[in-house]
Amino acid sequence: MEGDSVKLLGFWGSPAVLRVKWALAVKGIECQYVEEDLSNKSDMLLKYNPVHKKVPVLVHQGKPLAESLLILEYIDETWKQNPLLPHSPYERAQARFWSKFVDDKCMPTVVAAFSKVGEEQQKAAEEARENLKRLEVGLEGKQFFGGDNIGFADIAIGWLPYWIEIAEEVVAINLIDAGSMPKLNSWFHAFIDIPIIKELLPPRHKLLHHTKAFLQA
Amino acid sequence: MEGDSVKLLGFWGSPAVLRVKWALAVKGIECQYVEEDLSNKSDMLLKYNPVHKKVPVLVHQGKPLAESLLILEYIDETWKQNPLLPHSPYERAQARFWSKFVDDKCMPTVVAAFSKVGEEQQKAAEEARENLKRLEVGLEGKQFFGGDNIGFADIAIGWLPYWIEIAEEVVAINLIDAGSMPKLNSWFHAFIDIPIIKELLPPRHKLLHHTKAFLQA
Repeated sequence: MEGDSVKLLGFWGSPAVLRVKWALAVKGIECQYVEEDLSNKSDMLLKYNPVHKKVPVLVHQGKPLAESLLILEYIDETWKQNPLLPHSPYERAQARFWSKFVDDKCMPTVVAAFSKVGEEQQKAAEEARENLKRLEVGLEGKQFFGGDNIGFADIAIGWLPYWIEIAEEVVAINLIDAGSMPKLNSWFHAFIDIPIIKELLPPRHKLLHHTKAFLQA
Repeated sequence: MEGDSVKLLGFWGSPAVLRVKWALAVKGIECQYVEEDLSNKSDMLLKYNPVHKKVPVLVHQGKPLAESLLILEYIDETWKQNPLLPHSPYERAQARFWSKFVDDKCMPTVVAAFSKVGEEQQKAAEEARENLKRLEVGLEGKQFFGGDNIGFADIAIGWLPYWIEIAEEVVAINLIDAGSMPKLNSWFHAFIDIPIIKELLPPRHKLLHHTKAFLQA
């Protein structure tokens, strides 16, 4: 039997995997980490996530869980210490809303801004900036999306400005403008300055190399 | 002040709005329903959902909530009677997984199967059937996704076979095959046979007309 074991199938450069690593770190849960070769996925990954065949997969007590935001919900419900979601249903909905917004709406425009060219790129960049600016609403009157402490949405969104800064080095386009997004900018720096957050970030030079390959594919 | 008032901004033909109506009905919560003209959205809708400008929006105690699956979570957390999500974190993750799967993966292929033509249509139909078959896993050993009673995933997914049956009348293509999807098929009929579910379904002839316009747009 697998007892209370926690295993994470991941890939070092995946933002979705980083969310799960951060969440486990905030909860103080140790896990056995298994790095996947995404060009040659393991039988274990295909068995545990037959629908999406993607990382992350969290395996707890032998049961697999997929989809990073749903894994964060699971982690928060399973280990109660250092709650990720706030107590109030309305605030919980807000945290989920901004996290989903980044995946569904923000991220596609950001990727398009970095991978399209010419007029299409300009249009995508404009949309991406508007979407990023929207996130400022989630930070209104707060240091973190979670309030005084980091929570669900911080963990869900925190990789985005880090990755954008790196992609901006690959493609000469500017998306995060500290002047028009002051809250987002100071939130981001406060977030990645937290030791357990910072120490799990993929090394900048390695991610730069990976991002170059990804955007130029 | 708005007290404990519950208002729902909706559109009669929207599957996402239907989810919210069903969830409120299961909880026994009355709401003031406001029908939106989607070709001329109200100031209230634009004010309450500035990010997506979409229905449904649930307004509770003056505070707006968007995104149907997140509204279901809110409803379940706010009104505890007749829980939509099960108790166990693992089963909660499963319910959320199948609901998200329908929105992210199943629905785009189903719409493509009904709106593309020729070879593209055949390919999309094949994918749509595979995705629909996947849902059978969520019904393994159970009458409903929620077990003996309907729950979160039933409410999230229940409109899909209803709409597919109607779209199959508009476009001569068959996606739900009772032979290869027996669990999905019997679940669907058991689900829409529940009185509070059935009575909120949009009238078939009206939805047929609307679907024709949607698919031929």
